[in-house]
Order: sequence, then structure tokens, then C-alpha cells
Amino acid sequence: MRRYLYRGRILSLAIEDGHWEIVEHKDAVALLVQDPQKGVLFVSQHRPAIGRRTLEIPAGLIEPGESPEQTALRELAEEVQLTGTLEKLAEFYVSPGFTDEKTYLFRVHDPRPAQGVPDDDEDLTVLWRDPAEVLEEARRGELAISASTLAGLLIAVRDGG
Amino acid sequence: MRRYLYRGRILSLAIEDGHWEIVEHKDAVALLVQDPQKGVLFVSQHRPAIGRRTLEIPAGLIEPGESPEQTALRELAEEVQLTGTLEKLAEFYVSPGFTDEKTYLFRVHDPRPAQGVPDDDEDLTVLWRDPAEVLEEARRGELAISASTLAGLLIAVRDGG
Repeated sequence: MRRYLYRGRILSLAIEDGHWEIVEHKDAVALLVQDPQKGVLFVSQHRPAIGRRTLEIPAGLIEPGESPEQTALRELAEEVQLTGTLEKLAEFYVSPGFTDEKTYLFRVHDPRPAQGVPDDDEDLTVLWRDPAEVLEEARRGELAISASTLAGLLIAVRDGG
Repeated sequence: MRRYLYRGRILSLAIEDGHWEIVEHKDAVALLVQDPQKGVLFVSQHRPAIGRRTLEIPAGLIEPGESPEQTALRELAEEVQLTGTLEKLAEFYVSPGFTDEKTYLFRVHDPRPAQGVPDDDEDLTVLWRDPAEVLEEARRGELAISASTLAGLLIAVRDGG
């Protein structure tokens, strides 16, 4: 039995069986764009939840009625003005001890320019970085990265470029 | 300005600046135990938040006053009755768009038996699996894994064993 304490914009809070604190959250996509010369494409942004700027691969929430692939192409256009061919690399739950949020990680093949306008509330800087360097800075705690960024970086270093 | 709507056992819900839905959550550790013959050590358990059984590397929440390393050794003893030498592999935010939960991922070197008793509410099965096989089953959506498990698997396959 799930009793709801809050129903909001991107998440809801419930107690299950009088014991488990559960956050229902929209699913997400994350996008690995890799170039043999330039490295991996990142967005840097301030994240109110952690009070820090993060370095993350492009990502976004799946809206009702969208497939993960549709969200991926929409976010690619909005956040970094690109399009391309998608290959699913992984799917995972971000923290299944408390939330149902699932993330689909895609590689973007043959990226090319596309038209797109960022959301109003997104203050994004787009940049390319060497994935091995970012991994090491994140390991030392100097950079804040997301789970999907860590997975994308490990795959980027594995596959080279 | 952060206004709290709920303060609970493992998490709190707040609204920041009248707009951002934020879940404050305890930080966590996750533990990669790898054996050249047996593969990677997993726990399988039912997760109420997603209504599925997951396959995850051993993990647990950092309690007040604990360092990540102390939590790692406590959880290793409780969940899989092991101890060992810790090497930090990564730290990352599970989903910084809405929660401050940070996870520290460690490799356990020279694992050896230790005394420990699982939590009452943990219905765990402990098993060894080949990391490349688990990665592929998770990619196809046949297995539910966590973010820290995905990162651990990518590192396990990279480093061999």
C-alpha cells in the first residue's frame, strides 16, 4: 500500500507499507557524444539540489508520451543543437533503494547540427573535454559528475577517442 | 530559500526558491569485489521503490559520524561477511537534478571472511556472476541494476577478471 504525501512537477513522495520512503520520479535519458579529436561533449550547469556546478553529459527527463529515443533527440537539439543516430548503451536505476528513476544511456553516432532552443531555466555552458582527465578529476572530488556521466566516461575511455 | 515539506528516516523533501523539488538523501557507498575465477560479487534483493528484484554490487547508506571507508567496511561485513583493503574508484551524484545523494565507489582488494549480521529488513541473496554477461543482460533490460553497479561492471570488465 502506497500512501502519497506529495505529488509535484517532476516527482512524488510516498510511504509504502508504512515503512519505505519512496520517490516516484520521471525517467531520464543521457547522451554520449564523442569525437576522436575533441573528446566528450559536456554541459556545465548549477544544480540547486547539490549547491554546486556539475559537469554532465547532455541529459533530460522523459515527458509523458515520449519514447526514450524521442526524448534523446529532443534534448540533443535543445541542449547542444545536435542530432544523430542513437545506440542504446545501458539502462539503470539511479538509486533503487528509494526512487524509481531509470536512465537510458545512448551513444550518438554521426552527430550533426540541429535547430533547438534551451529551456528557460537552464543556464548551460557546453564544452568538450578529454574523458580520462574528467574521470580522474571526478575521482579526486574536484569535479561533480552524475551517475550517467560516470558511465558515459568509462565507456568513452574504453572505446577510445 | 529551502522550505521543507517532509523530514524522514532516510530522506527529506524540500522546495527551493519556490520552484525546485529537492530530495535530501544520505550519501552511500558501493563495493566492487572481483575474483579472476568467480567474476563479480552481487546481492539480489526486492526493491519496493521499483517493484522489482535488482542485481547490485554491495552498497549501503553512510550513517551520521561515519566516513565512507567506515561505512564500506561495515556494509561489507553485514551484507557479504567480508573485509579487505579499500581503493576509491569514483564518486558521483546519482541524479543531481533532484537529489544530493552522492555515492562513493570502492574496489575491495584481498577480500577475506569477516563476521557480520544483515539488517532485519534486508532479504538478500549473495551471488557471483560474470560482469560482461550481467552488463549485456542489463543493457537489454532483462536485469535491473543500479547506477553504482553499472559503473562497477564497466570497471570490472575494463580491468579483467
